[in-house]
Amino acid sequence: MDQDNLSVVVHSAGNIRLENRPVPQPGPNEVLLRMHSVGICGSDVHYWQHGRIGDFVLKKPMVLGHEASGQVLKVGSAVEHLKPGDRVAIEPGVPREIDEFCKNGCYNLSPTIFFCATPPDDGNLCRYYVHNGNFCYKLPDNVTVFYLSGRHLCLLIFCCVQNSQFLSVGIHACRRAGVTLGSTVFVCGAGPIGLVSLLVAKAMGASQVVISDLSADRLKKAKELGADFAVQVQREAPQELAQKVEGLLGCMPEITIECTGAESCIQTGIYATRSGGVVVLVGLGPEMVNVPLVNAAVREVDIRGIFRYCNTWPMAIAMLASKKVDVKPLVTHRFPLEQALEAFETTRKGLGVKVMLKCDKSDQNP
Amino acid sequence: MDQDNLSVVVHSAGNIRLENRPVPQPGPNEVLLRMHSVGICGSDVHYWQHGRIGDFVLKKPMVLGHEASGQVLKVGSAVEHLKPGDRVAIEPGVPREIDEFCKNGCYNLSPTIFFCATPPDDGNLCRYYVHNGNFCYKLPDNVTVFYLSGRHLCLLIFCCVQNSQFLSVGIHACRRAGVTLGSTVFVCGAGPIGLVSLLVAKAMGASQVVISDLSADRLKKAKELGADFAVQVQREAPQELAQKVEGLLGCMPEITIECTGAESCIQTGIYATRSGGVVVLVGLGPEMVNVPLVNAAVREVDIRGIFRYCNTWPMAIAMLASKKVDVKPLVTHRFPLEQALEAFETTRKGLGVKVMLKCDKSDQNP
Amino acid sequence: MDQDNLSVVVHSAGNIRLENRPVPQPGPNEVLLRMHSVGICGSDVHYWQHGRIGDFVLKKPMVLGHEASGQVLKVGSAVEHLKPGDRVAIEPGVPREIDEFCKNGCYNLSPTIFFCATPPDDGNLCRYYVHNGNFCYKLPDNVTVFYLSGRHLCLLIFCCVQNSQFLSVGIHACRRAGVTLGSTVFVCGAGPIGLVSLLVAKAMGASQVVISDLSADRLKKAKELGADFAVQVQREAPQELAQKVEGLLGCMPEITIECTGAESCIQTGIYATRSGGVVVLVGLGPEMVNVPLVNAAVREVDIRGIFRYCNTWPMAIAMLASKKVDVKPLVTHRFPLEQALEAFETTRKGLGVKVMLKCDKSDQNP
Amino acid sequence: MDQDNLSVVVHSAGNIRLENRPVPQPGPNEVLLRMHSVGICGSDVHYWQHGRIGDFVLKKPMVLGHEASGQVLKVGSAVEHLKPGDRVAIEPGVPREIDEFCKNGCYNLSPTIFFCATPPDDGNLCRYYVHNGNFCYKLPDNVTVFYLSGRHLCLLIFCCVQNSQFLSVGIHACRRAGVTLGSTVFVCGAGPIGLVSLLVAKAMGASQVVISDLSADRLKKAKELGADFAVQVQREAPQELAQKVEGLLGCMPEITIECTGAESCIQTGIYATRSGGVVVLVGLGPEMVNVPLVNAAVREVDIRGIFRYCNTWPMAIAMLASKKVDVKPLVTHRFPLEQALEAFETTRKGLGVKVMLKCDKSDQNP
Repeated sequence: MDQDNLSVVVHSAGNIRLENRPVPQPGPNEVLLRMHSVGICGSDVHYWQHGRIGDFVLKKPMVLGHEASGQVLKVGSAVEHLKPGDRVAIEPGVPREIDEFCKNGCYNLSPTIFFCATPPDDGNLCRYYVHNGNFCYKLPDNVTVFYLSGRHLCLLIFCCVQNSQFLSVGIHACRRAGVTLGSTVFVCGAGPIGLVSLLVAKAMGASQVVISDLSADRLKKAKELGADFAVQVQREAPQELAQKVEGLLGCMPEITIECTGAESCIQTGIYATRSGGVVVLVGLGPEMVNVPLVNAAVREVDIRGIFRYCNTWPMAIAMLASKKVDVKPLVTHRFPLEQALEAFETTRKGLGVKVMLKCDKSDQNP
Repeated sequence: MDQDNLSVVVHSAGNIRLENRPVPQPGPNEVLLRMHSVGICGSDVHYWQHGRIGDFVLKKPMVLGHEASGQVLKVGSAVEHLKPGDRVAIEPGVPREIDEFCKNGCYNLSPTIFFCATPPDDGNLCRYYVHNGNFCYKLPDNVTVFYLSGRHLCLLIFCCVQNSQFLSVGIHACRRAGVTLGSTVFVCGAGPIGLVSLLVAKAMGASQVVISDLSADRLKKAKELGADFAVQVQREAPQELAQKVEGLLGCMPEITIECTGAESCIQTGIYATRSGGVVVLVGLGPEMVNVPLVNAAVREVDIRGIFRYCNTWPMAIAMLASKKVDVKPLVTHRFPLEQALEAFETTRKGLGVKVMLKCDKSDQNP
Repeated sequence: MDQDNLSVVVHSAGNIRLENRPVPQPGPNEVLLRMHSVGICGSDVHYWQHGRIGDFVLKKPMVLGHEASGQVLKVGSAVEHLKPGDRVAIEPGVPREIDEFCKNGCYNLSPTIFFCATPPDDGNLCRYYVHNGNFCYKLPDNVTVFYLSGRHLCLLIFCCVQNSQFLSVGIHACRRAGVTLGSTVFVCGAGPIGLVSLLVAKAMGASQVVISDLSADRLKKAKELGADFAVQVQREAPQELAQKVEGLLGCMPEITIECTGAESCIQTGIYATRSGGVVVLVGLGPEMVNVPLVNAAVREVDIRGIFRYCNTWPMAIAMLASKKVDVKPLVTHRFPLEQALEAFETTRKGLGVKVMLKCDKSDQNP
Repeated sequence: MDQDNLSVVVHSAGNIRLENRPVPQPGPNEVLLRMHSVGICGSDVHYWQHGRIGDFVLKKPMVLGHEASGQVLKVGSAVEHLKPGDRVAIEPGVPREIDEFCKNGCYNLSPTIFFCATPPDDGNLCRYYVHNGNFCYKLPDNVTVFYLSGRHLCLLIFCCVQNSQFLSVGIHACRRAGVTLGSTVFVCGAGPIGLVSLLVAKAMGASQVVISDLSADRLKKAKELGADFAVQVQREAPQELAQKVEGLLGCMPEITIECTGAESCIQTGIYATRSGGVVVLVGLGPEMVNVPLVNAAVREVDIRGIFRYCNTWPMAIAMLASKKVDVKPLVTHRFPLEQALEAFETTRKGLGVKVMLKCDKSDQNP
């Protein structure tokens, strides 16, 4: 292992740098990883541009990156399920203590959780990185076969793996919504999260999915990815839009997954959802919104939010390995780690859907 | 059985009359009941005053009343679990068809449901009434013993039984909230529904309940009924109030049961509830409200409404029989059926908590 | 409509006849159907051979058949969601009353339920049949398109529709098991129910399914239908077999669906299932079985049975319409209704997988 | 703090000793405790008598004890919710890693869990002990008041606190069973766990509890503790006994909590439970049992085991603090730590219900 641990570090709002950092050593429950690929997330760009997100304020330089995959180089003394050479997907949030949230199976809500690239915790957009072994998920053996059997398949699998984090939001949303065989689902918004939610809902057995967006291009992509119906939003009132959705499906959807955060979309989601159904709020908009809560309440339409994800990685990897979803079309740009600043610039400008950084000098394959 | 079937009938807004109606005959799945006691609900008064509630509009004369108990006089050919002489509590909503909602265990959401005293369906504020036998719940045998053993106990049990409907709202709310052993609960509003929710939460094992209201008198009653802490609301901002609640409990409550419908209370409920918890909306306020949905969403605080109730009657009767709750203190006035107009006037003026009509000339006991 | 209502009637053990019965008329909530296709189920053959199944004893002649589809000819006065001409799949169990089971969403457990071809209730292996409209499920419009677009597709869809009952057992089993995205599943037995359970588990997102059987032929079919691994059972002890399953999956399965009823298979299912997982008992064997309950208990492996199904028809139809499952390969024989006795003989001999009777003289298409 | 750390150590089967061990120091997430009271559990006696329980075999000397309470002396650097002086109840099982079971909220099933007094992990029957701070639960402030206000109340509270472990089994069983308001429950066996399950079921709102046992004395105690009905088991067949239970309740119970492990009791539990209900297996008997699984399966009666407990401590403490349960009558003997061998002898002979050791020389109060 060379000692070059090139890392993408944000120092303050507007100030991002490529620096060399020491290579860390794993503790008993940890593993040392050679990073393979890391996606750039909207939150990475936000910390770079603004130095904060809400109450999370940058107070010292922080390595960015949390959508990541890598290869195990060394394991701590207590780690039994991994060994050097294993390729793994990395779940970025690791509870620091087994508090009441963790004990109850929602460790994502633990207030003291470590989370990659959330101040003050460093991320993994670097060459070498240490992480809790329980939050590194081994890729199934059959992936190796695919890797060897052709560029196309390796593309599929590798780009998927590094997208576990990406998929996980969609999985957590669909699971909170209770999507199952035969579900009818309305997805508001056809951006990356909306598209992933569509893919996951289908993989969970949803029979019909309607998706809405302002952009005809995005809706076209959604149809390619399996949406049964697409609604281009114009100037309709929320109730009108809700009726359009019902008209397309032939019934009101049981589930709405709201991915825009826009007030009018939340309103539409409530009006559109069948009595006894669920609206999941994934998109984040203004702190206060004006919504028809009585309409939801008297029809027992539940409103549920999501915070990151928990218990989604094994599902995400299973989906990817079984080829139930193909998130490859969502990755549109790739850069070597050395060109990280250019990659960030590309993301900031909103070019493409998802931008990836390739961190392993010896393996720049997707 | 005499043929006097005196009934309280609303003809139009402001126009309520006592009339004689024919005594009905039970069909195969039905029972004929001699009505014993019927509570006056806010909705009865509303139909009398306004001739409508929302989309439910009075188009022909309608018998009022839906909080009721009676005695079986005759059973239909297919009824096996009841016999003449049985005293029963009456669940007012009966599905007309086994549609998707009914099949899934939420028959309360069935759009074609029959519901006493909701246009166009007649209620049971009368002497003789026919109802589906499956929605008449026999009082347990031990109640008879109590009935014979003294006025005080009979009072307790009888006034409770006729309050099954009343209790059912509280049960449905607490069940939707997931109240269980050790739960910490915040109840917003100490009116009748808030107080019943308090009683039910305690009966389900809640360890600590905080209740809030504007009125010191109501809070005093709440403390007598078992509230651990009471908060008199003044001019605090919602976040301030939420902090007071946390201060009293020593932690944020897992569950908030909002019984006022007021916008500021819904806001308080969201801020006050622990991450991963639930806010149940029982009170109904304005159609649109301005609320911090993002705050709820990113902390995975679910927002759930209730519509009437389902599967609550057996629970309510079990609670009453086992003396886990005593709703007696909530009944403050009783009138014979002949004085129904006076009773409605009393209710309209907001005197007392709950007003009862005694329908059985031969048994005017509570 | 001609008045020929040819019906397959069992009179006593060993005594089955084709007879003409009167054409019935629908009540307010009912529809009159022209039957299209009816599958022969093992229970039909059992009533024919033995005149009883357990406590259900034939006391008067009974029409057989309960796996059925038909076309609406006439609707009762209260039926709004169907009209003459609609093609429907028929759920054979209809609650006679809204009892505690029905109210709680498990109407399949109602002791007074009507169930086609279960004494004393007649089935629908006939030309004309009346059924509760809420238990007739309209085929989606798009099916018509397929019907017109070619024999192959019509084959797929039509044979599927008449198999809703068949699919429903698999759906109910997988739902009771909690199969979801990424689940690992062990199916014991590759007979019709095992194969359907496999198809449904995959449609619900199961990532890996292992299936076991004595027969190499059945396992071959299972692999064709999507099983990831197949285990041919020989003389292994249950624990050995459990280890083989773990070896194939690389982990213990979270879910076992036991479709044989054999004591040794139930034992294997318990040993094989991961701590915290579920064993669903679908196959029915001897009344008493010797099983390692302590092993299940201390690992919190739940044991759940299924009785018929509830709330599965909409899912089944959704699956069929979306082509998520293809149960066509499971239907191996078809006979016109007039040749019912020959069809029963074929089933009794165990030839093929599933035998269908075509009841509509004017439409004998699959 | 003196340096006497007297500890009860089992060296091999039949060989138990009082020894001095070094006082340990807390790590970052740990606390050092001065032990107050430790109950003797059947498993402690079993390790002493046999040197093993099933696969858990004593390979080196081990401190016994896991039903415990103590006082915080020192906290590790990362512990924020406790401070020196706090009195705490101790949950004996602490996950060593955040594996799949822990992530999903059932950390009790984690195969690598640390568990007091289970080889090779030391227990806490000693003067000074170090434990993970997240698994030490602070007693509510009001307990101090009780402690000061009289021997009787202090007795109630203190003996309860050290019984959190004891209560936790009952809570976990009732929670796995789904006991809630109005539940009807059949408890098989009126030993300590049966009695605690009875107390917890009542605290969760169960309306009627039947309990069975061979011993009239135990049933008398059960009635004193709130059982509605008691059945003294004689030579009835399981079905007969099941009918007696139904006769007493007036209906079949929804839930059976089986606390004996005896084959005939498990059979009775299955026959007795209502369709759609649950049998929870708490008692552990022979590895293989002969049971009517088909009867359970076709009536959808679920069979669920429990392994220790998880997420029960906060509930147990809330119950104790709110005086919903009074487990005091279950503690019949108390000894100072120095007399541990005599206390073990008392337990081994089966004298009394529960035996306690008082570990704090300066506070031997109950």
